[in-house]
Amino acid sequence: MSLWPPDFAGRIDERTIDSRLLRGNPLGDPHRRPLWVYTPPGYDDEPERRYPAVYMLLGFTGTLPAWSNQPGAFRTSVPVATDALFARGEAPPMILVFVDAWTSYGGSQYVDSAGTGRYHSYLCEEVVPWVDARYRTIPDRDHRAIAGKSSGGLGAMITSMLRPDLFGAFATHSGDALSEAQYIPHFLQAVRDLRAYGGDVFTWWDDFRSRTAFTKQEDLRLLEILAVSACFSPGADGTPMLPFDPVTGVLRPEVWERWLRWDPVRMAPAHAEALRSMRAIWIDAGTRDEWFLDLGALAFRDALGRAGVAEDTVRFELFEAGHVAIEYRHPQALAWLAHRLAP
Amino acid sequence: MSLWPPDFAGRIDERTIDSRLLRGNPLGDPHRRPLWVYTPPGYDDEPERRYPAVYMLLGFTGTLPAWSNQPGAFRTSVPVATDALFARGEAPPMILVFVDAWTSYGGSQYVDSAGTGRYHSYLCEEVVPWVDARYRTIPDRDHRAIAGKSSGGLGAMITSMLRPDLFGAFATHSGDALSEAQYIPHFLQAVRDLRAYGGDVFTWWDDFRSRTAFTKQEDLRLLEILAVSACFSPGADGTPMLPFDPVTGVLRPEVWERWLRWDPVRMAPAHAEALRSMRAIWIDAGTRDEWFLDLGALAFRDALGRAGVAEDTVRFELFEAGHVAIEYRHPQALAWLAHRLAP
Amino acid sequence: MSLWPPDFAGRIDERTIDSRLLRGNPLGDPHRRPLWVYTPPGYDDEPERRYPAVYMLLGFTGTLPAWSNQPGAFRTSVPVATDALFARGEAPPMILVFVDAWTSYGGSQYVDSAGTGRYHSYLCEEVVPWVDARYRTIPDRDHRAIAGKSSGGLGAMITSMLRPDLFGAFATHSGDALSEAQYIPHFLQAVRDLRAYGGDVFTWWDDFRSRTAFTKQEDLRLLEILAVSACFSPGADGTPMLPFDPVTGVLRPEVWERWLRWDPVRMAPAHAEALRSMRAIWIDAGTRDEWFLDLGALAFRDALGRAGVAEDTVRFELFEAGHVAIEYRHPQALAWLAHRLAP
Amino acid sequence: MSLWPPDFAGRIDERTIDSRLLRGNPLGDPHRRPLWVYTPPGYDDEPERRYPAVYMLLGFTGTLPAWSNQPGAFRTSVPVATDALFARGEAPPMILVFVDAWTSYGGSQYVDSAGTGRYHSYLCEEVVPWVDARYRTIPDRDHRAIAGKSSGGLGAMITSMLRPDLFGAFATHSGDALSEAQYIPHFLQAVRDLRAYGGDVFTWWDDFRSRTAFTKQEDLRLLEILAVSACFSPGADGTPMLPFDPVTGVLRPEVWERWLRWDPVRMAPAHAEALRSMRAIWIDAGTRDEWFLDLGALAFRDALGRAGVAEDTVRFELFEAGHVAIEYRHPQALAWLAHRLAP
Repeated sequence: MSLWPPDFAGRIDERTIDSRLLRGNPLGDPHRRPLWVYTPPGYDDEPERRYPAVYMLLGFTGTLPAWSNQPGAFRTSVPVATDALFARGEAPPMILVFVDAWTSYGGSQYVDSAGTGRYHSYLCEEVVPWVDARYRTIPDRDHRAIAGKSSGGLGAMITSMLRPDLFGAFATHSGDALSEAQYIPHFLQAVRDLRAYGGDVFTWWDDFRSRTAFTKQEDLRLLEILAVSACFSPGADGTPMLPFDPVTGVLRPEVWERWLRWDPVRMAPAHAEALRSMRAIWIDAGTRDEWFLDLGALAFRDALGRAGVAEDTVRFELFEAGHVAIEYRHPQALAWLAHRLAP
Repeated sequence: MSLWPPDFAGRIDERTIDSRLLRGNPLGDPHRRPLWVYTPPGYDDEPERRYPAVYMLLGFTGTLPAWSNQPGAFRTSVPVATDALFARGEAPPMILVFVDAWTSYGGSQYVDSAGTGRYHSYLCEEVVPWVDARYRTIPDRDHRAIAGKSSGGLGAMITSMLRPDLFGAFATHSGDALSEAQYIPHFLQAVRDLRAYGGDVFTWWDDFRSRTAFTKQEDLRLLEILAVSACFSPGADGTPMLPFDPVTGVLRPEVWERWLRWDPVRMAPAHAEALRSMRAIWIDAGTRDEWFLDLGALAFRDALGRAGVAEDTVRFELFEAGHVAIEYRHPQALAWLAHRLAP
Repeated sequence: MSLWPPDFAGRIDERTIDSRLLRGNPLGDPHRRPLWVYTPPGYDDEPERRYPAVYMLLGFTGTLPAWSNQPGAFRTSVPVATDALFARGEAPPMILVFVDAWTSYGGSQYVDSAGTGRYHSYLCEEVVPWVDARYRTIPDRDHRAIAGKSSGGLGAMITSMLRPDLFGAFATHSGDALSEAQYIPHFLQAVRDLRAYGGDVFTWWDDFRSRTAFTKQEDLRLLEILAVSACFSPGADGTPMLPFDPVTGVLRPEVWERWLRWDPVRMAPAHAEALRSMRAIWIDAGTRDEWFLDLGALAFRDALGRAGVAEDTVRFELFEAGHVAIEYRHPQALAWLAHRLAP
Repeated sequence: MSLWPPDFAGRIDERTIDSRLLRGNPLGDPHRRPLWVYTPPGYDDEPERRYPAVYMLLGFTGTLPAWSNQPGAFRTSVPVATDALFARGEAPPMILVFVDAWTSYGGSQYVDSAGTGRYHSYLCEEVVPWVDARYRTIPDRDHRAIAGKSSGGLGAMITSMLRPDLFGAFATHSGDALSEAQYIPHFLQAVRDLRAYGGDVFTWWDDFRSRTAFTKQEDLRLLEILAVSACFSPGADGTPMLPFDPVTGVLRPEVWERWLRWDPVRMAPAHAEALRSMRAIWIDAGTRDEWFLDLGALAFRDALGRAGVAEDTVRFELFEAGHVAIEYRHPQALAWLAHRLAP
């Protein structure tokens, strides 16, 4: 019985990487990691042909099998929709690499962190070479892109800025950006949530792990804040440090500043050259995104302009939607990238 | 590559039924239908052993592959969670039959309708005998149950009432009930939604089919109303007739009355004997269900009491939640049913 | 010190009526009732001149002094805004009569009720003659109108239908109509509210009266339901009877039916002749009214059409707003009525 | 006809001050300002007796007549409720001074500003001496307090910090504090609002002034932001400068910094001595305040503690409510202050 429909024209290999870098990570999460590699229709018929590759990053709480989820009736999953584009010849074929960077807190934000592990390095130094060694990619940055939604969009932006030698294009859908817009309203609400837990996020965390997850309204909000704290602001021993006082909501500047260092809007000036080197940048977000990532998208585009990125490199769109059920944007961006990256 | 995790102890067979009853259905939907049959751990080792069976019905817009969706991190899908219960010996093993009754409008409500097709008959007269002929069920009503969420819960309730000769137990999670509570607030909002479509639901329907589904906030609400109209109040030619004036919201009594005939709360008195014959009835709903199905659950329980159903037959619970992300209730009910139906 | 600004051109007399009909009312509410009579600029200068009169009804929980409330900055109260229209000659002058029909439950719905008192009769048989005897009105139905917002709009509609001999025109702003749209969503929510009070509205009522009013989110909703029950469905001893089961939300048909008798949409057919006799009817409501009274307005207009009311008698408008802070609609309707009723 | 009920035991004098400091203010607002002075029951009978005085500040968009508004049924206005406390002997009598600091933008935030005028100085240098000269106050800071809600609470906090020589106690109800909590969520929403106005707040402002105020959902939000910009961050010519980019929402640090200078939480350390000199400080807020002023209250209390204010000086409470309809908190605080300030 197959995970994919009968008319699936390409193929998805479900692989496992034994990561050296994730071995002994602080949370005791697995170092053997699943990886899905999609090869497009025709891949086996043209054994000499090489393809651009796009690394696909998951959003917060996402795990690899979610890519195959049936996203409600009347829609298709990202691999199925993208495969159909290739099969119909509407976009030049590419290899897609679905990366797992899950942690016990729900995600890694694709950074190296003393709180979670070296997920940035894992992606750049282990996954990319592993794929290039086993699949017929065009193994250079001009034909390698990275894409994601939400936290995955953050990963696409920051990884491209940090490693322009590896990635020459990226797509971000409702990607984390403009941290005060994204987080402050949620911090404020979290303070109210925490009143039921004596102002202690770890009391909530113990409760959360003792029962069915996400049965309380505050669960996702508190989990996200705890997880990002683990990624961006772990203490010396790896314990997540919240960027605000859990009783008053007052920002803790020294902690909050560590979060801001990962804000793509604030990172852009220092990585202007990397950004100018990109061959293609897709940015989109929903007009009523619950994390105000539409403003994040606008601010990041603005930052690109000030960094000197040429306008025709960037494809920008705000679309009528919130933050969820927007997986249909992926195939649109992939088709656009495919045309830009085609050899 | 498997749809299921390595430690999945049972087995799911993906089968197809060629339905005679759905052939030539009004919407031109397929008459060849997928069916998943789960056999529990040990099924192949004890070739003489027979098992109770539970028929699992999907909610509105659900399709069979949704059962295998990874329901967000920190949770597992219904088959995986239930399989684990059986594997750990926490519940006596059962066969689970995952039924497809999808239509082009998103669902069939598990009724026979001139607007969609004969899905009730398909389930009772084709699926049940087909399964009994091919799997080692205990082929009697005392060991056959039916369960579902939302529209699937409706299916569980009404099918049990109509065919107590086939089903001797059921579970309904946030099942459709108390029609005025469930629908009237949505009708009122739909009237406002339809102002952008000249008050014509078919103008919206044409628009909906021309673009990515569910990108507008009104999509799910209007789709549901149109679909249920197709199921409960088709015109002579099968065209869905709305139960309200789309400009003023005034109920159309002769159409609305047809909807009310499918309200389990209103059906209960006429099917009191069937209900009294049930061996086990599980009813639950979230306290802040967006369709007020918590009130539907309370009202249905009340109707059971008035029909003379013994209190110890019924397991009732309101839990803190809305209407979505409550798939974790299924395994709880299945474990309870398993103990009640065990031979 | 005056209640009114220095440039107020007319005059408001604060009077008191000693009502015979309200004496000994069931709630022990006062039978001496305040009444404000506004006379327009020029009233004292032309001692022979007579004027049309409009009876102004308050919404639920409103009391007479509320008419003089400063409705937030950038706006003026209804008497001040209307006075300015007359002073500037933008509308022919009229007398305005501000009527009090307050009860201990917050309002009377302007009906005669064994639960609250004879407020309909008080208005028609006591207030109108009292005013005509003391002010230079044109004392006939062709020059007497009635207007109100919310419950006041209900009062305007039903009083005109019941006493077309007294009133020849009316204006309803977001007036109660289409009872199922107005009330059912609130009943459903009320059932949830009542869970904290053991399903007993009188437990809430005791709590409500023991503390500062309206400090709990459910207060207004439960008060309104209790008050309307007192008006529309009192028991033999005057005790309010809820039109729904407070635990399940199931409608109690025999009680609900008594509410429906006061639905202007349902009353219209039996009072078609009265409605056809009206000289002017103003209907408006906000497009996002929290009681769906925009649908009520549409349905009432529809009912007028079916009753044979000529289209040019009716002024209809949906405006972008909710249910509150719409007092600015009154002066617009009064100006329109003034032109229609001018002798 | 009186503004006040027959059993009103004290007296309110409606006075006018001709302000020298407001003459020629930037917005052309009146320099003749209304002032209400409440004298308690017994004031005229004991011509030698002197009383503590509390200066009462309005919230944003408030004007003096709003103090007499009938605040919905089942409640009474602040003067009426407080007068009753004095009349019943539940609190030692005080003089109350109701101050007007309205501007064309809706308020002055009680600061001196090149954008609006010298309202802080007007209050401290003109109103206070004027009252002391005409009423039998105890004319020293130990018997002079200041109180307000929302922007009025801000005025109470900052005026006390800036002029401890004038004010020796204060009460703040849901007072502006912790600026990022209060404003950032509203800035983000304002960016979305401004999309309909080309990202230009003055385009909205022109539209706002051309029609009935507050008929659009964005009106209050945009007005507040514009008004506070006029107060806190006027340009050299007095034009309000927004503290954020109206298209991307990115904070403009040099402007935002000017707002933060008026955040009571941030002002407290520099005014620790003034705060320690206070005889009584009342702080409260609703637990679900729409501007998160519950967090502002908590953070301000925290700042008081760090400034060395003795705990028994402070009365702190979070109460179950939002930001509106909380005028009933005033009499509670006034009674408490009365006991603390009684000679």
